[in-house]
Amino acid sequence: MPLKTVKEYLNSLRAMKFEVYFRGERIENPVDHPVIRPSVNAVAMTYALAHNSKYKDLATAYSPFVDKYVNRFTHIHQSTDDLLKKVELLRTIGQLTGVCFQRCVGMDGLNAVYAVTYEIDEKYGTQYHQRFINYLKYVQENDLVVDGAMTDPKGDRGLRPSEQEDKDLYLRVVKETEEGIVVRGAKFHQTGAINSHEILVMPTISLKGEEEKPYAVSFAVPSDSPGIVYVYGRQPSDLRSLYDAPEDCGNPKFAGQEAVVIFNDVFVPWERVFMCGEVEFAGNLVEYFASYHRQSYGGCKVGVGDVLIGAAANIAEFNGVDKASHIKDKIVEMIHLNETIFSCGVACSCLGYKTSAGNYMVDRLLANVCKQNVTRMPYEIARLLQDIAGGLFVTMPSWKDLENGKVGELLQKYLVGKKGVKVKDRVKLMRLIENLTLGRSAVGYLPESMHGAGSPQAQRIMITRLADIEKKKKFALRLAGIGEQENERLE
Amino acid sequence: MPLKTVKEYLNSLRAMKFEVYFRGERIENPVDHPVIRPSVNAVAMTYALAHNSKYKDLATAYSPFVDKYVNRFTHIHQSTDDLLKKVELLRTIGQLTGVCFQRCVGMDGLNAVYAVTYEIDEKYGTQYHQRFINYLKYVQENDLVVDGAMTDPKGDRGLRPSEQEDKDLYLRVVKETEEGIVVRGAKFHQTGAINSHEILVMPTISLKGEEEKPYAVSFAVPSDSPGIVYVYGRQPSDLRSLYDAPEDCGNPKFAGQEAVVIFNDVFVPWERVFMCGEVEFAGNLVEYFASYHRQSYGGCKVGVGDVLIGAAANIAEFNGVDKASHIKDKIVEMIHLNETIFSCGVACSCLGYKTSAGNYMVDRLLANVCKQNVTRMPYEIARLLQDIAGGLFVTMPSWKDLENGKVGELLQKYLVGKKGVKVKDRVKLMRLIENLTLGRSAVGYLPESMHGAGSPQAQRIMITRLADIEKKKKFALRLAGIGEQENERLE
Amino acid sequence: MPLKTVKEYLNSLRAMKFEVYFRGERIENPVDHPVIRPSVNAVAMTYALAHNSKYKDLATAYSPFVDKYVNRFTHIHQSTDDLLKKVELLRTIGQLTGVCFQRCVGMDGLNAVYAVTYEIDEKYGTQYHQRFINYLKYVQENDLVVDGAMTDPKGDRGLRPSEQEDKDLYLRVVKETEEGIVVRGAKFHQTGAINSHEILVMPTISLKGEEEKPYAVSFAVPSDSPGIVYVYGRQPSDLRSLYDAPEDCGNPKFAGQEAVVIFNDVFVPWERVFMCGEVEFAGNLVEYFASYHRQSYGGCKVGVGDVLIGAAANIAEFNGVDKASHIKDKIVEMIHLNETIFSCGVACSCLGYKTSAGNYMVDRLLANVCKQNVTRMPYEIARLLQDIAGGLFVTMPSWKDLENGKVGELLQKYLVGKKGVKVKDRVKLMRLIENLTLGRSAVGYLPESMHGAGSPQAQRIMITRLADIEKKKKFALRLAGIGEQENERLE
Amino acid sequence: MPLKTVKEYLNSLRAMKFEVYFRGERIENPVDHPVIRPSVNAVAMTYALAHNSKYKDLATAYSPFVDKYVNRFTHIHQSTDDLLKKVELLRTIGQLTGVCFQRCVGMDGLNAVYAVTYEIDEKYGTQYHQRFINYLKYVQENDLVVDGAMTDPKGDRGLRPSEQEDKDLYLRVVKETEEGIVVRGAKFHQTGAINSHEILVMPTISLKGEEEKPYAVSFAVPSDSPGIVYVYGRQPSDLRSLYDAPEDCGNPKFAGQEAVVIFNDVFVPWERVFMCGEVEFAGNLVEYFASYHRQSYGGCKVGVGDVLIGAAANIAEFNGVDKASHIKDKIVEMIHLNETIFSCGVACSCLGYKTSAGNYMVDRLLANVCKQNVTRMPYEIARLLQDIAGGLFVTMPSWKDLENGKVGELLQKYLVGKKGVKVKDRVKLMRLIENLTLGRSAVGYLPESMHGAGSPQAQRIMITRLADIEKKKKFALRLAGIGEQENERLE
Repeated sequence: MPLKTVKEYLNSLRAMKFEVYFRGERIENPVDHPVIRPSVNAVAMTYALAHNSKYKDLATAYSPFVDKYVNRFTHIHQSTDDLLKKVELLRTIGQLTGVCFQRCVGMDGLNAVYAVTYEIDEKYGTQYHQRFINYLKYVQENDLVVDGAMTDPKGDRGLRPSEQEDKDLYLRVVKETEEGIVVRGAKFHQTGAINSHEILVMPTISLKGEEEKPYAVSFAVPSDSPGIVYVYGRQPSDLRSLYDAPEDCGNPKFAGQEAVVIFNDVFVPWERVFMCGEVEFAGNLVEYFASYHRQSYGGCKVGVGDVLIGAAANIAEFNGVDKASHIKDKIVEMIHLNETIFSCGVACSCLGYKTSAGNYMVDRLLANVCKQNVTRMPYEIARLLQDIAGGLFVTMPSWKDLENGKVGELLQKYLVGKKGVKVKDRVKLMRLIENLTLGRSAVGYLPESMHGAGSPQAQRIMITRLADIEKKKKFALRLAGIGEQENERLE
Repeated sequence: MPLKTVKEYLNSLRAMKFEVYFRGERIENPVDHPVIRPSVNAVAMTYALAHNSKYKDLATAYSPFVDKYVNRFTHIHQSTDDLLKKVELLRTIGQLTGVCFQRCVGMDGLNAVYAVTYEIDEKYGTQYHQRFINYLKYVQENDLVVDGAMTDPKGDRGLRPSEQEDKDLYLRVVKETEEGIVVRGAKFHQTGAINSHEILVMPTISLKGEEEKPYAVSFAVPSDSPGIVYVYGRQPSDLRSLYDAPEDCGNPKFAGQEAVVIFNDVFVPWERVFMCGEVEFAGNLVEYFASYHRQSYGGCKVGVGDVLIGAAANIAEFNGVDKASHIKDKIVEMIHLNETIFSCGVACSCLGYKTSAGNYMVDRLLANVCKQNVTRMPYEIARLLQDIAGGLFVTMPSWKDLENGKVGELLQKYLVGKKGVKVKDRVKLMRLIENLTLGRSAVGYLPESMHGAGSPQAQRIMITRLADIEKKKKFALRLAGIGEQENERLE
Repeated sequence: MPLKTVKEYLNSLRAMKFEVYFRGERIENPVDHPVIRPSVNAVAMTYALAHNSKYKDLATAYSPFVDKYVNRFTHIHQSTDDLLKKVELLRTIGQLTGVCFQRCVGMDGLNAVYAVTYEIDEKYGTQYHQRFINYLKYVQENDLVVDGAMTDPKGDRGLRPSEQEDKDLYLRVVKETEEGIVVRGAKFHQTGAINSHEILVMPTISLKGEEEKPYAVSFAVPSDSPGIVYVYGRQPSDLRSLYDAPEDCGNPKFAGQEAVVIFNDVFVPWERVFMCGEVEFAGNLVEYFASYHRQSYGGCKVGVGDVLIGAAANIAEFNGVDKASHIKDKIVEMIHLNETIFSCGVACSCLGYKTSAGNYMVDRLLANVCKQNVTRMPYEIARLLQDIAGGLFVTMPSWKDLENGKVGELLQKYLVGKKGVKVKDRVKLMRLIENLTLGRSAVGYLPESMHGAGSPQAQRIMITRLADIEKKKKFALRLAGIGEQENERLE
Repeated sequence: MPLKTVKEYLNSLRAMKFEVYFRGERIENPVDHPVIRPSVNAVAMTYALAHNSKYKDLATAYSPFVDKYVNRFTHIHQSTDDLLKKVELLRTIGQLTGVCFQRCVGMDGLNAVYAVTYEIDEKYGTQYHQRFINYLKYVQENDLVVDGAMTDPKGDRGLRPSEQEDKDLYLRVVKETEEGIVVRGAKFHQTGAINSHEILVMPTISLKGEEEKPYAVSFAVPSDSPGIVYVYGRQPSDLRSLYDAPEDCGNPKFAGQEAVVIFNDVFVPWERVFMCGEVEFAGNLVEYFASYHRQSYGGCKVGVGDVLIGAAANIAEFNGVDKASHIKDKIVEMIHLNETIFSCGVACSCLGYKTSAGNYMVDRLLANVCKQNVTRMPYEIARLLQDIAGGLFVTMPSWKDLENGKVGELLQKYLVGKKGVKVKDRVKLMRLIENLTLGRSAVGYLPESMHGAGSPQAQRIMITRLADIEKKKKFALRLAGIGEQENERLE
């Protein structure tokens, strides 16, 4: 079975030659850097579960392409049941890591490119789909992490790609040769790029016209290809992983990762090019990817939501207020909102359909509805957690103070909660709450819930387009007795 | 095929000898009473669709009990697909009627009693399940409307049934004979009772102890059994169906129906008794019925929601403001909320499971989440419709004024909207909007969304019980590094 | 003192020769028509309070124009304290009537025209302000109800007044003579027109250009002037006042009133004309009126809100659930929302300022914020009341059934609530709840809260204009260290 | 005039001998510590404004106690105008610092103790009030920062102070001598303690009974009194002030401060004791302080809200999306919510009343309503800012990377926004947005808005008590025609 162990995954990453920068310095070994490692651990969980009998059914899937069980994150969905299992898997890993574990972007990219290459070939008689299948087999056989890279810097958002003063503000082909293409540009907000073996690039908006052809490009390259430069983004309280005790980190083992990825004239051989100039398909590719990824949030954010709910229930107990009716009511509300998101994730999966390429696509209207809820409900869940926690999670001294002689003793005296609860456990839990709502994990749970897979307005545009408003208008006219009556009459 | 036509349904009702009161008078022929008829029409739609090729797949289902296709409203769910089709069917009828069409209560009651009679028999070796199957076949073969009757008057809600001053405030067995039982009590808020052939009675709360045994009773009787008295409830603007032009009614053909049903010492033969004294199963029966019915709202209210959305889109056009960005944004919001409810309806169906009796039960956590959203979102959808409509829908003169000589001409002059829109169509649409948000249809869309299938607090209690909070607490402790670590470790 | 008694008010109305239509018939004596009378009673409360020692300080004010105490509804605000007392008075009458009492529109119109006529005279040397003061004295001396009439039919809302196919869709001057002007058009949604002695007409939007001059017209005429035609608007359940027992009405004594008022070539003498062609002042007049009227809602709707809160607290007690923590929490939420609106009403009053004409204007930003909250919070308050009430308020039989022999006895048996509560009191309270949330009073509390004094989008436009966003931008730049630093530095 | 300059303030602090710990180390000079200094700067702004002619009227007030103009933060409110000016002053400083500037707690404490000492003396003939006035004069003459210290650690929140295993979990008197008292305990979440000259201690809950007498204690001591130990709390991203470029801090000059303050057997002379054992007045003191402080949030948080709105408007412009209707609409919503809070702050001030001691108290119902809104609306404002900003604020590389040779050049190439906007300005603004919503300033704007001045449930309890529900119940009964009618009848 082509399933890497966690150790194999870490070593395979260590063997790569990334050019990575963080806080003005080049990081030679990102895997073992104290700030970066937690984000590698989160990806590693996707490998760990595939070897764990308890999660195997979710974490792996049978691939007809290589005739083997592969990691589900490299899988092409063969049924609505696959779509549903994806959502359940993501929820599970969210629960186990409390952060964005970054590997979905690649899975969603693979499925979107799979569908669109087929469509392009149908129209143009090109060979993209077979090329892509070859690439897919390589990914599945080697159990690789693929970073799906979509979001361009965009410069002035009021201008089209080719209208920007600097034409590189959207990634584009700057040269074509017999061997391949050379691309220039950047991808922003890349979750998990520095943890990945491969980068799968896609355009970021619908395109049209001759002048936008260079931007209609999709391809895959090894993540350490010459010319690719990574800059690791700042996260709230990121320096605690470097300068403080792990207990001050809140969720010391796991974190998300967002990097700027710059393509400084990177060469791509033709067998890795999956779209090149077919502008009219850029929109579909964006929309397919977005739909899959909006479904994803119906799983992963729900899993993290479970952690917030658990933290709320624990801290209420530690503080001695778990019996108060208003506390219980707030926890119900958190659950209600979290399960509402999950319902949307499930519904868009179960109502999925088969694409012409043969893989399964989610119900796109409901996937957009799902993501729209994700731009709101996690914020309310986080607010309720802050309410239940009490203010200590933002006023509490450092772990080092707690362990510091006289002042440490005094702090431990005054930080006791309910009888039977260890002071240090209460402190650790408070730090987790800080981390989830104002720290490193909050990046994934809040602003990423807002902007990942497209900002809220993007979903609203799609919802308008996908809801059949004309049909709804007829229902109203019919009942009001306006115009000619339709056929569903009562004798 | 045992599928009645609309005409057959209406005639079968006309043949029954209901004792019905409305506004202080006995109504001899409720079917053809101007106030009541629209509520009969709504039920009739469930018959009409079963004969319409476009809707047949949704509106009928294969019953293994009678080995025939039956109306889905009499069907025992054989799969999660059946659960999903139920939701889609309810949405469809909501779209076609704009009101509560009243037949789901029976369907949900049949499925709940089917499951619980099996459980009772398992424990007590009783014959309830087979009795019930015999009854079910009769219902399916004759395509009957069954009113599922649950809600008791309850008196002082702070007291248990047997603690009430008047013991009849919860329906109970007052006499047992060899032939059967005699029951006394009432059921309130009965949707569709006077439109039904049969009444299937269930207890309204969990019960326990010897003194509550008389209340643990479930049975079915013909709706016109001696001793049953109906009083038709008031609805906002109900008199317009009696004294005004149909155009002033808004949705002249369809309406909901809520009646008080009084059981004044009604005899029930043993073959129609499905629970009698098994107090510990009352809770399950309530919970099963409630779960099914909370799922129902994820379909029917969404269908009515579609009508509100359609009305909003139409009136925006009629008023000439359909291009305004804030109007478009409000319509997107309406759709978003409506589809969120639908997602919950779909999700709890697709994640349903097989009961020990063999029929399918919804995912109960998500069904409760679904209903909880229904207690909120329709109110916001209605508010947005009132926003988009402008104030005319509550200040507009009567249709009779519109047709009244000089003043009619003046009104028609001043009531014009956008060019090309007929004044009278705009007026009719405004009336529909009044009807949907403050009139007869509003009863079903707003307070019934609040209280039908259990008031919001009932769902919150269930959500607390069904969400596995202990498991969530462990997720949080694990990430915070509290207590012994569990097994999903890395490497 | 020029303060009419209620009896004098009613008789003065009875003496007028209104041309009124309702349901296709001319109503000879609107004051004593069963449907219309409750709306007259609501206005009458403004007279009653002026004679009641408990309310006198709020209900009357010293007028420097006539050197006497006058009814506050005819008063020109002389201080911010007057503005504050206005809000408190409106809240009080809302509490006592539960409906829109209709007399504020005139008060707000008088104050707006007072300020704008001064501005016009300043620019053009016209005599409008003195004319208006003469008119004002007449109103104050005779304690008249003035209907402030603003909202035109508007036709296609995408077109300007002069672009409409029918030029009369905005009220306009069709003829000028030495004696006066002749106007044609209509005013929609007129609260309290048929209860008023006078109509004070104002334009409905900002105007400009030669072709819009005929629309820039403001004037006052007696409400029964030749050529004025009234059509009384429909309200939910309006026929109950005609055909049912008062107990089925919910709030039998009081109601709002919204009428279509048509000006079918009405003559206005010059001494009653307060603007005629000064297009650039139409915007100010609209905005001043709107600001006053948006403040009003911070009083009147809060008073009605108090009734809803009281109804919630009563019904919880009647049902025996007043000790339940979720019920108490919902009542707190209702109060919180209601007092938030009140805070906005108070704040915009206390931060008011003196106009160049000398009367006091509210803080316009906060008045718009006030009204914006009114378009949302009453809906949530009503939703919570429906939640607390239980479903009975929309399923309960008619009062006539309750008093009807056998069925009446049965109903009374089953409608009991908590011990000590009379069944009929519980029934009456349920009907009040229906009336407030889905009946006649709901018109004033819900859609009028939405659209009265301008629809929500109108406030958003004003808020954008009145909030000094440029200043806020500088605060942010300064803290981020962008651009040259301003002078509030430390040390 | 007793108004210190910023320099004098800083030097006076430097001269004090605080025992302060942070991250396990004793900090000798907190004033000039890189992490602590920004929080000192925020307090310093209260001194700066008093010397600035533009703000003097707000920042100072005439004190009858010392017959001089004093800093308003040491002022006893002499009128509702003083209450209003306080709110306006706090809003102003919020705008200028973007954080909690910490000096209000003392002002609110001074006013609360002023009122309650008078009440105690009235009952017991004690001399607390005169003692307090002497103390007040000292504070005003020397323009001191007073930290109002209320919140005890509380241990198990289900237990009363004297029921805790460790009796010190609420601060208490452990010894009384002729010279004074000795106190032991701690105060948590102390905003601005290490910036203050004095600490004014108050109890944290209502007390009763003999065994709670030791907890009924109020007094003032110099902040560097022997036995007082401070531990500076952690804040998100606090280490950036230590290890990163100022540009990575977002709001480099200003921050809030929350410390644990431990009273390790601190001696207080009798002339500084303002309550000692009068248990029945502890509740009043808490409630008065809470009411003043809940009013405060109607000013300070609104000022910070203005910064968020400004940041939103700027970043929309920098990104080139300021013309998009959905962006404009979100900014209006932010303003609307912010001004709603302000309205509550203004209203509770304008409706204030004179206490028996002679100073002015806010309307307590509306002050609680104000704070309740503060526990919700800032979260939505922050969410909207994150929406408008786009995701860059949480994925952007370090400032050091931006200035780092090749990679810096590449970053500057790809981080351009709209033409004319400097890349570095855009970066700085993004960091401010991170700081305001997930960084140091977020502590004051979000969890402090939740928990400062009492958690949301505390306000709900007060709202229930202060709203006259019985009166509202009568309004409803009267309209429904239940019981005997009251006197406000018509005719």
